[in-house]
Amino acid sequence: MKSVLVAGAAGFIGSHLVDRLLLRQEINRIVAVDNFWTGTRANLDHIADPRLVVVDVAVEDFQQGSLFDEIYHLASPASPPWYMQDPVRTISANVIGTMRLLTLLRAGGRFCFTSTSEVYGDPLVTPQPETYRGSVDCTGPRSSYDEGKRCAEALLFESNRLSGLDIRVARLFNVYGPRTRPDDGRAVSNFITNALFGKPIIVFGDGLQSRSWGYVSDIVDGLEQFFWGEEHGYIGPLNIGNDREISVVDVARYVAGLVPGTKIVHVDPIPQDPTNRCPDLTLARRIIPGWACQIPLEEGVRLTLDWFRHQQQNDLSSVSSDSMVAASV
Amino acid sequence: MKSVLVAGAAGFIGSHLVDRLLLRQEINRIVAVDNFWTGTRANLDHIADPRLVVVDVAVEDFQQGSLFDEIYHLASPASPPWYMQDPVRTISANVIGTMRLLTLLRAGGRFCFTSTSEVYGDPLVTPQPETYRGSVDCTGPRSSYDEGKRCAEALLFESNRLSGLDIRVARLFNVYGPRTRPDDGRAVSNFITNALFGKPIIVFGDGLQSRSWGYVSDIVDGLEQFFWGEEHGYIGPLNIGNDREISVVDVARYVAGLVPGTKIVHVDPIPQDPTNRCPDLTLARRIIPGWACQIPLEEGVRLTLDWFRHQQQNDLSSVSSDSMVAASV
Repeated sequence: MKSVLVAGAAGFIGSHLVDRLLLRQEINRIVAVDNFWTGTRANLDHIADPRLVVVDVAVEDFQQGSLFDEIYHLASPASPPWYMQDPVRTISANVIGTMRLLTLLRAGGRFCFTSTSEVYGDPLVTPQPETYRGSVDCTGPRSSYDEGKRCAEALLFESNRLSGLDIRVARLFNVYGPRTRPDDGRAVSNFITNALFGKPIIVFGDGLQSRSWGYVSDIVDGLEQFFWGEEHGYIGPLNIGNDREISVVDVARYVAGLVPGTKIVHVDPIPQDPTNRCPDLTLARRIIPGWACQIPLEEGVRLTLDWFRHQQQNDLSSVSSDSMVAASV
Repeated sequence: MKSVLVAGAAGFIGSHLVDRLLLRQEINRIVAVDNFWTGTRANLDHIADPRLVVVDVAVEDFQQGSLFDEIYHLASPASPPWYMQDPVRTISANVIGTMRLLTLLRAGGRFCFTSTSEVYGDPLVTPQPETYRGSVDCTGPRSSYDEGKRCAEALLFESNRLSGLDIRVARLFNVYGPRTRPDDGRAVSNFITNALFGKPIIVFGDGLQSRSWGYVSDIVDGLEQFFWGEEHGYIGPLNIGNDREISVVDVARYVAGLVPGTKIVHVDPIPQDPTNRCPDLTLARRIIPGWACQIPLEEGVRLTLDWFRHQQQNDLSSVSSDSMVAASV
């Protein structure tokens, strides 16, 4: 039987990963660590499994007498308005969080980390292969997240090199879907939330900056196969994302089309907003064969819209519409 | 009167900076923090000034009731064999060290950080201007130092952006000179030490990789002007280095010529050893006008050789020649 720790378990992607872990019968305990900074209790509310224990604490401060067989570190804000608001804490969650969790892994255990396509910064090559070293301004407004993730990667690969630590490092490209916070601040969820509240969709700049939009179930399929699927022996880094590149304004138009009467408004561009982001999936196809994103953007957006509409109907009072004006990615 | 903290004060560059700080009469206290990991007590032995207090502790663990008017953070190994041996501790000194020291700065105080040309990685443009985002492999064998420094820069620039913290971030290119450890592991000191011990000089690969070699007094002149010289209002990053690019093998030949009978031996290249490194000093000339490197490599190497010879004669017993075979930069 295995004991597992998930940091950031109440987050958007973390909570979906917990669902998948609970399908594994050889796991007898999942400790879900979250300080509910960007994660929400609602994301774990549907789980009644007694194997899940939720601990309300920041990952850097988590203390535990026993060690874990597998550790999944997803604890970090991932949306620009959130990490830009608290850069020191963002770096701390990623870097000190990783250091802390490394002390909680039993010898021979596995450490899985969700890094990000932001390690490529505003890329000068497209699509981005894992070997691309990136174009990140380490003094810029996105640096707390980008450099926090890069530094956590360094910690893990160095630990692998020095002591043979068993690691898996995935680099996630844009992910959207149910359980995103309404005030998350990234494009798909913001467009949907604004549309549902009868507000205009806000697009930064001309909206021609492109992203690869991965529906959360597809992305978590990839994580599952990479983190604990059939043994491939590859530690990472591995790009996981959808390689269908679509511009921000096209997503806005699609959402506007689903909610009649929705207007699109353009505002000033965000400083250092990457012009493009698209995963080179050559390596992913080799390491986790059979995996591919299945849900087209159109279907994913409809599913996400349905989920948000359901949330809105169930719990209008808990959602503030004031913070949902703009979207960045 | 001012109270000053220098982290890494017993290090090669740190100790030279302390000498300069002691010339400032308005400073009444310098707390020199060092855990003597790569710094040495001998580097501060010449100082009898009662304003200097040495505290033997790692920068991350330093505790103090009172706050400081100026903090200088130089605490990090800087030589590849040293930081590669202990990557987690290297990241910790830079990232957690910066976080810790930030809590010790009085409101309105100034935080000065010595970053590195390693933030440029193996650069694809030459010379490197401060705007160049670098080419660092965040999963590679140099990543603990490179990403630790990049992440510390991010912490400081984000803190400046968010709370107006007064910072100065210098990016130092290769520095050499008296007070380098004999077992430091970088080129000039290693070449000299090997030559003085009658051993061959070891050059990695063909030695055609180039560096810009800055003699320590020139570099500390630049730091002094940037950190506390005439007010320029620029927070950084600022390249400080010598822009005369000389290949590693040319330095080896010059040292060999100074110590008759010295042979040069080539061994396999180091993984990810940058092929070139040269500062673009356009910005430095504008921000700290009048500053320029004065000591040509030939003179600097002779001065360094004299210092090492003097050390060797004074204290042969404290120097182990076994660890001085190879050099990397």
